[in-house]
Amino acid sequence: MSDTDDVSVSVVLPAGGTGERFGSSMPKQFCPVMDRPIILYTLHEFHRLSCVKHIVVVVSQPYMDYMEELVESHGYSKIMVVRGAQTRHRSIYNGVKTLKSVLEPSDVVIIHDAVRLFIDASTIQEVAKASKETGAAGVHRPLISTVISSDGCGYLEESLDRNRYCASEMPQGFIFSVILSAYEKATDHDFDFGTECLHLALKYAGTKARLIEGPHNLWKVTLRKDLYAAEGMLKENELQVQVVGCCDRDLVTHLQQDFAARHLKMTVCDSMETCDLVDTNCTVYYYTQFDCDVITEYTENHHEEQKKDGIVARTPFMDKVIVHVIRSEDKVMDCCRKVREAMQGKTKSWRKKHLLVYFVLSETKASVAVVSEMVASVIWTRDPVMAGQTYMAFD
Amino acid sequence: MSDTDDVSVSVVLPAGGTGERFGSSMPKQFCPVMDRPIILYTLHEFHRLSCVKHIVVVVSQPYMDYMEELVESHGYSKIMVVRGAQTRHRSIYNGVKTLKSVLEPSDVVIIHDAVRLFIDASTIQEVAKASKETGAAGVHRPLISTVISSDGCGYLEESLDRNRYCASEMPQGFIFSVILSAYEKATDHDFDFGTECLHLALKYAGTKARLIEGPHNLWKVTLRKDLYAAEGMLKENELQVQVVGCCDRDLVTHLQQDFAARHLKMTVCDSMETCDLVDTNCTVYYYTQFDCDVITEYTENHHEEQKKDGIVARTPFMDKVIVHVIRSEDKVMDCCRKVREAMQGKTKSWRKKHLLVYFVLSETKASVAVVSEMVASVIWTRDPVMAGQTYMAFD
Repeated sequence: MSDTDDVSVSVVLPAGGTGERFGSSMPKQFCPVMDRPIILYTLHEFHRLSCVKHIVVVVSQPYMDYMEELVESHGYSKIMVVRGAQTRHRSIYNGVKTLKSVLEPSDVVIIHDAVRLFIDASTIQEVAKASKETGAAGVHRPLISTVISSDGCGYLEESLDRNRYCASEMPQGFIFSVILSAYEKATDHDFDFGTECLHLALKYAGTKARLIEGPHNLWKVTLRKDLYAAEGMLKENELQVQVVGCCDRDLVTHLQQDFAARHLKMTVCDSMETCDLVDTNCTVYYYTQFDCDVITEYTENHHEEQKKDGIVARTPFMDKVIVHVIRSEDKVMDCCRKVREAMQGKTKSWRKKHLLVYFVLSETKASVAVVSEMVASVIWTRDPVMAGQTYMAFD
Repeated sequence: MSDTDDVSVSVVLPAGGTGERFGSSMPKQFCPVMDRPIILYTLHEFHRLSCVKHIVVVVSQPYMDYMEELVESHGYSKIMVVRGAQTRHRSIYNGVKTLKSVLEPSDVVIIHDAVRLFIDASTIQEVAKASKETGAAGVHRPLISTVISSDGCGYLEESLDRNRYCASEMPQGFIFSVILSAYEKATDHDFDFGTECLHLALKYAGTKARLIEGPHNLWKVTLRKDLYAAEGMLKENELQVQVVGCCDRDLVTHLQQDFAARHLKMTVCDSMETCDLVDTNCTVYYYTQFDCDVITEYTENHHEEQKKDGIVARTPFMDKVIVHVIRSEDKVMDCCRKVREAMQGKTKSWRKKHLLVYFVLSETKASVAVVSEMVASVIWTRDPVMAGQTYMAFD
């Protein structure tokens, strides 16, 4: 989780936006992706790192209680919730001031956006180390559009050379004394119209920030389309598939291809005894006949393991998906009836325990390719309303 | 489809990129979204407009045949496929030169990117009219990140005032003589390192482009995450749901809420006779008992209507989704067996005719809210491998 060389950091996370540009009644940082508010993914990534000592989340007044509840219900211990202000800089300054009581002047403060949820540990450390050395550091990315200016009458004035400029992204890092004194000296004009913390550090603390090329995952959720992008990438990054006890090698090969096509990681495990219930969150079990007791036991083991997960896990708040594949010589409709009768009540209670359980039934003569595609589709879609459904692959 | 005041345009669509930044073996413009290559959505939007006279698609050599096939198989008649070159400007110039034989000097040429698939008719006309008047026009959007420059040693040099600059996007429009003479005079340096057509028009044709604030849908697919964004927004924009013959008002209310939550448009129609099979692409039928003949007739009517669609339809190449909801007093497992036995062979052949047919079965005592969520989930997911599946809502 942490290297002994890691620089300790505290974090200010401005999350006070009202979502005007987003076209939604709910500010984008609180919009759900895979049933959880975006900010939770960002918070969690910081909170689980031992190098992170304090996190100040700055939210607007109407969301203070909601945010406090979110922090409490997830058992987060390093988070302070602070009230936001009218502009981005004023909100960040509120967060920075809150750290006065707990930080030394030479400590490092990381500023990040709640809506850049794919922040990773190595970028945090890279920015932290550079800012410890230089006083300030930030990440940048290549421009994806040419930057132009208008002459004030709606005509092209200037077109910047795309190779000379880049986009300033988050996170940024500062020695605490640098960012604090920059904000202390900033003018009302800076607070009301400025957008760039690195600029304030240069202007008021004389600190020339180190620029680091960041990874492409630092993009921020800006428009509603980005919610779909966030969901897709969360799935790609987080879903870990494990196939257990599948004696049909042909099916395993198809599953490998189908999950690879969706950019998901998949491991294979021959038996229940040796499989890993902690680090995978999607498990596919394979049976050649329906056995209610076995299915129940395997499923409930996941719940037991899940309870042991700490808040340091990568994504402890994601529902687990379990797909039971039954490929037998029985008529698939007969098998379906058995599964439904035995499992109906259980799948409901499993769903409450954050286990999404699905069944894929197949006659032995049905195409292995179709069974595999169905399993991959169920895991990717992982729709809670479909928990308990039986999918049937016929000849 | 077209206003008599519309300005006639020809279009150059550079699609020669190799997808390096995209991290995929396939260039992004050919990556599938909802089973169709991205470029097809962009092409179709231009092609269906009567104001569009010629479209030149510029692709790299290895994709020439593929592109020709795509054009032919969709019956597009206004498209010329031209070979790309090493840089963006050289490729666009190839496209512009191709139009010499068919355009007058005062005609309007629109340049757009294949990977900006949400281009709309009104933006095309706005750009066309402005360029007809001014000689050149382009759309811009507010910057979403601050633009900075480095001092060459990796430290911050300058931070631009975000309020003074904006991002230049596509489409752009030009009087043919303006863009042609700009390219004729451009230097090798322009061709190799330049990125901005408006800049060339200013520098070599003395034409100061008119800048128009574009809608937010002009974003381009740049990273793989954008494929998910494209899929989500295509669904939001294109899926038109129609609920037919649903006498359960409570269910209709739930469906309205569930589709609205997914930003989908839904209409209600009391009978099969008055419903619109052409302009909707997702139809939900409601029954209080299973009747194989009725279901078959209703489903196959869609295929007949589909064949009548011309290539001027908004999205003629999207599979239609049909959900048959059967909410009866029968035991749901018994109903399931009946549906499976009667429908199994048919759903396969319907799938080949681009009809994705699903069944949602519910006992009358089951929750209407669950039935509605299931229907919305099936339509949103519209997974071809699940065509023919029966989803069961129990008490």
